[in-house]
Amino acid sequence: MNFSEKVREVQQRTNSLLCIGLDPVLEKIPSHLQKTGDPIVEFNKFIIETTSDIVCAYKFNLAFYEAQGVSGIEALEESLESVPNEILTIGDGKRNDIGNSAERYAETLFYGFEFDAVTVNPYMGTDSVEPFIRDPEKGAFILALTSNPGARDFQKLKVGDNYLYEKVIQRAKKWNTNNNIGFVVGATQPRELASIRKRVHDMPILLPGVGAQGGDLKKSVESGCSKKRDMLLVNVGRSIIYAQNVRDTALEIHTMINTYRNEEK
Amino acid sequence: MNFSEKVREVQQRTNSLLCIGLDPVLEKIPSHLQKTGDPIVEFNKFIIETTSDIVCAYKFNLAFYEAQGVSGIEALEESLESVPNEILTIGDGKRNDIGNSAERYAETLFYGFEFDAVTVNPYMGTDSVEPFIRDPEKGAFILALTSNPGARDFQKLKVGDNYLYEKVIQRAKKWNTNNNIGFVVGATQPRELASIRKRVHDMPILLPGVGAQGGDLKKSVESGCSKKRDMLLVNVGRSIIYAQNVRDTALEIHTMINTYRNEEK
Repeated sequence: MNFSEKVREVQQRTNSLLCIGLDPVLEKIPSHLQKTGDPIVEFNKFIIETTSDIVCAYKFNLAFYEAQGVSGIEALEESLESVPNEILTIGDGKRNDIGNSAERYAETLFYGFEFDAVTVNPYMGTDSVEPFIRDPEKGAFILALTSNPGARDFQKLKVGDNYLYEKVIQRAKKWNTNNNIGFVVGATQPRELASIRKRVHDMPILLPGVGAQGGDLKKSVESGCSKKRDMLLVNVGRSIIYAQNVRDTALEIHTMINTYRNEEK
Repeated sequence: MNFSEKVREVQQRTNSLLCIGLDPVLEKIPSHLQKTGDPIVEFNKFIIETTSDIVCAYKFNLAFYEAQGVSGIEALEESLESVPNEILTIGDGKRNDIGNSAERYAETLFYGFEFDAVTVNPYMGTDSVEPFIRDPEKGAFILALTSNPGARDFQKLKVGDNYLYEKVIQRAKKWNTNNNIGFVVGATQPRELASIRKRVHDMPILLPGVGAQGGDLKKSVESGCSKKRDMLLVNVGRSIIYAQNVRDTALEIHTMINTYRNEEK
């Protein structure tokens, strides 16, 4: 099954577009878990056990694990083991390098950590992305239009009649012979999201920026879902993992997403 | 001392523009080191001891260390301890993420591993780069025009009258209030390198792509040195570290660089 089919399958089976971002900051972890031997692992396990029946994926931002040195890498490995096999895992490292180095990153993330998908920065072009899209079963979400303020600096530069991020999308669509490419599009720009969805048809879109970053959930779901197959992964991190009641908050967001998504049909 | 002054100082003191890329692949390490407990650390120590009087910097491509999992991270830490304090270390991870994640990467690389400088991908704009340029003593080499074939895909797209990589350089020059920004420019494009040098004056340029990747050393040194202060870091990896005689090969390249550089003056 190629990655695109996997996304479709897991979203249908779980009836969920929710992806939870597991980016734990040690200081924000509840105090009773701080006392355990490995607070990050215990925290992640708790979030996963509490939510795995209402999500389609978990996204791990590598910056947060690398920040803890060797123990962070071990925590990442252990946390991944807690994710049920039938739920997708995304290694959010935004990696990019020339061919032979990119190959090492891809090997590490796909076959070391065994992530189902990764995020990839497109700036260095074809050979820097190719190692991440070689295996049809593994997915690569290419940064198109990100959720941060700096997105306007380069991604929104005009290249002829298009924005740079549109050129990235055009090119990536040509690379997509294995049906395993998706895009990262920030929830902070719903108008652009709608236009991107039209261009990419049923390709997966990973949507960060809902919640703490201020993206509007309703507009994003309405703009970002493919008419036929959804294929939108709505990433929510801080607003869920640090919520007073994690389960209730996750369920509430999950339900809202499904309401907005069904209104669309 | 800001990073730009540091580069100038170390290049004057060592009389060297040579940066050695320590990107070890386990299988290529000589057999007598394979038998030691930690081949990568022993190999790096050997290269560093053999060459540290004729280089200005060592560059560590993080992809090669991450590929070895936890033991690779430990090997990186240990290898960095072997680098004399007065020689620069560059963490080549081409990282980039939204502000609060980029902050974690910067903290890890600058204050965990204690790299003097890092490489940064500019695609996500201002707030994704800012954490890497906050400390004047720490340097950030921003990817401008890279040495790989894919460089043409996006970096060479025309944005108005400029190429995208020129826009990146324009913008980064404005960010450079701490005098700690440099650029990555591949040795495979000497004509563009000459034009970039004119635009960036005395800012540091990190030049990969000489040797295994086919860049011409003479043309690159002639095009890439600032007239007054050099400020070019010529990275050579595989051609030195896997050479039959590492010292002789490094010395030969070091001597060639200095010949070409002085012809220029």
